[in-house]
Amino acid sequence: MQNETAVKPPHIVIIGAGFGGIRTARALAKHEVKITLIDKYNYHLFQPLLYQVATAGLSVDDIAYPVRAIFRNQKNVDFRLAEVSDVDFDNKVVTMNTGEIGYDYLVIAAGGSTNYFGMESMEKNGFGMKTLDESVMIRNHVLRMFELAAHEKDADKRRALLTFVIVGGGPTGVESAGALSELIYHVMVKEYHNMNFKEVRIMLVEASDKLFATMPKELRDATVETLIRKHVEVRLCVQVTDYNGEKMSLKGGEVIPTYTVVWAAGVKANSLLDTLKVEQASMRRAIVNEFLQLPNRPEVFVIGDSAQFIQGERPLPMVAPVAIQQAEVAAKNIRSLIRGKELKKFTYRDVGNMATIGRNAAVVHMGNFKTHGFIAWAIWSFVHILRLIDFRNRAVVFVKWMWDYLVYERVVRIITRQRQ
Amino acid sequence: MQNETAVKPPHIVIIGAGFGGIRTARALAKHEVKITLIDKYNYHLFQPLLYQVATAGLSVDDIAYPVRAIFRNQKNVDFRLAEVSDVDFDNKVVTMNTGEIGYDYLVIAAGGSTNYFGMESMEKNGFGMKTLDESVMIRNHVLRMFELAAHEKDADKRRALLTFVIVGGGPTGVESAGALSELIYHVMVKEYHNMNFKEVRIMLVEASDKLFATMPKELRDATVETLIRKHVEVRLCVQVTDYNGEKMSLKGGEVIPTYTVVWAAGVKANSLLDTLKVEQASMRRAIVNEFLQLPNRPEVFVIGDSAQFIQGERPLPMVAPVAIQQAEVAAKNIRSLIRGKELKKFTYRDVGNMATIGRNAAVVHMGNFKTHGFIAWAIWSFVHILRLIDFRNRAVVFVKWMWDYLVYERVVRIITRQRQ
Repeated sequence: MQNETAVKPPHIVIIGAGFGGIRTARALAKHEVKITLIDKYNYHLFQPLLYQVATAGLSVDDIAYPVRAIFRNQKNVDFRLAEVSDVDFDNKVVTMNTGEIGYDYLVIAAGGSTNYFGMESMEKNGFGMKTLDESVMIRNHVLRMFELAAHEKDADKRRALLTFVIVGGGPTGVESAGALSELIYHVMVKEYHNMNFKEVRIMLVEASDKLFATMPKELRDATVETLIRKHVEVRLCVQVTDYNGEKMSLKGGEVIPTYTVVWAAGVKANSLLDTLKVEQASMRRAIVNEFLQLPNRPEVFVIGDSAQFIQGERPLPMVAPVAIQQAEVAAKNIRSLIRGKELKKFTYRDVGNMATIGRNAAVVHMGNFKTHGFIAWAIWSFVHILRLIDFRNRAVVFVKWMWDYLVYERVVRIITRQRQ
Repeated sequence: MQNETAVKPPHIVIIGAGFGGIRTARALAKHEVKITLIDKYNYHLFQPLLYQVATAGLSVDDIAYPVRAIFRNQKNVDFRLAEVSDVDFDNKVVTMNTGEIGYDYLVIAAGGSTNYFGMESMEKNGFGMKTLDESVMIRNHVLRMFELAAHEKDADKRRALLTFVIVGGGPTGVESAGALSELIYHVMVKEYHNMNFKEVRIMLVEASDKLFATMPKELRDATVETLIRKHVEVRLCVQVTDYNGEKMSLKGGEVIPTYTVVWAAGVKANSLLDTLKVEQASMRRAIVNEFLQLPNRPEVFVIGDSAQFIQGERPLPMVAPVAIQQAEVAAKNIRSLIRGKELKKFTYRDVGNMATIGRNAAVVHMGNFKTHGFIAWAIWSFVHILRLIDFRNRAVVFVKWMWDYLVYERVVRIITRQRQ
């Protein structure tokens, strides 16, 4: 007890249990440090598959895993279920809704949130898809639209109930549109015996002239073709200006009657980044140096969606592989600071892009390798099952996907909350 | 089109998609009838396993299955997502929140709800466990209590956070206590590294002098022994008088500080039965004749928890097998009415009782056969997996249970809603 203060290990506080936060804590597993991991949810969320929850392909706990279970055998991690409201960088204290906590090193990995680009009507009446609750809300809402349409006598109302708009031509938008098409044209069609499925309309709206802007042209074209084959109306160069919950207005005057608009057109960093009064770039992201530190705060690292890191003249995208690679370097640099060693500069190695558009259809682009169709879908499935964090979730997800594949079934189609 | 009214098949309206309603519709699959099945949820719920959702063993969609999926191939069933508010028996019309619908034959299978026996403080501050939402609320709440306790400095407050009371010594109460014990002493204990688990208290309170009143003494004794071995305090002959959300009062003056009371001490029929102004017995249940009809309403059948049927001087219990057997007879009698044949009297064949108290521990009583321990647990698992309605759910549940069995794991431990 005598030399307690002398031997106290450095305290590392990590804000956020997403890909970046979890990986940082893991990378410090075998080191003499004390780690406090803070998140407002008690689970780590596999965000790239949120759209599968929204389209009733997977259930909530297939893509969410308790943080404490992840660190069951890593005793140097203490988890706090709390929301961070501020950081006092001068005194090295994090303020949470449940109290305060001091740190020696801080890692801000607070993730992203939906960016409505100031369109308040969309924020109010559309659906974001960044949290588990939002995905479940979309699932419940879509299923409820079908139940209402099944007994709706007014044809215009019925068509509006059956019009589903997804805004945003990136991976989330494309994958959602594809999965929604499969849900409707392979599953629902068998169960709404008296419904005219010609009244159903799935629309994917993108403001630019491309889907998957970062993919090679060949794969972009294959994506559009696949979506059209799946009865998805692809609308490029179309800008949404307003949505009141019943009618969506487009630039140029067109009005689409619809009760469902999913907004997958933008991401920005967590609102915490605004609160912190750090120097910010676009999308709220904090500006970091080449070692991922805040300028003039060597003990504070910012990674993932929270940080803007310029490489090759452009900021790195807000995707999981960036967060994971940055986590490794941030953890390494914290160890170096503790030992007085030289820091490592961060460089992103591009691992490629992949997205699935439905059964047997995906696009994969890695370095010079590109492919689409069944092979791409098989690669996508394999990679995503492997990535899901623990064996059991993998086994359950595998059973579900195989079952869906064999019999075109979706069992998660339950409406868990009554209309408010 | 000419003789449309002449050939119109009889219209059977079924209220409720529980065990009784689903089985009635199924039993009419191959007959020239039109069926409308009404439920306020879009899924059939396997209620006997609700406690597994509440204790994080199964996820929501493992025990809930879309009604439309069940009747995918039975085209004479039309499903309505609606809440029934009244029935006009004279004009044969059912009123729903979404409109009205006429019937030729009506089956009331509206199920049961929690019976608080007038204790308003318990209804307000305790948890019922009859719906999927309630089970998820219990799961979220229990997990949140542990998160709060993990960082609570005040010892009294901490012990109250870690005191979990279950009221009711029937199958639901016993199974919940057993499952909660396993969750805490086999799973949580590994993940709350700094918590003193001696501060945890699980209490099962029963007003009478027995758990499982209908089981033979040998099995009742085995149940108590198993629970005690699992660190459950079994309190018999104890009556709860009040619960304010922080303190539970017992008759005699004892006060238990606790933030969690699950009320599994009583069931009564759905409140619809009060609205209908039918002749009622105890627990709101409608009095029916030997053919399961309402007296003087030969076209109206009442089954399951909604009906009181006296057999051997005692009313039949409110359990799934009664509802299922009554559904078969109600369907048969409707067919007989249509064809002008003689009706069949209902007689319940007792299929026995079983309940699980945790890993390797259950009690099974069927006719003269009774057993407990591992064999009983194996029988229980087998029967329940078979009963779950479709193959896929069975496969997924099987994987989960085997995994839990092998590694003492519970993956569903995610808190899906923030505190209100």
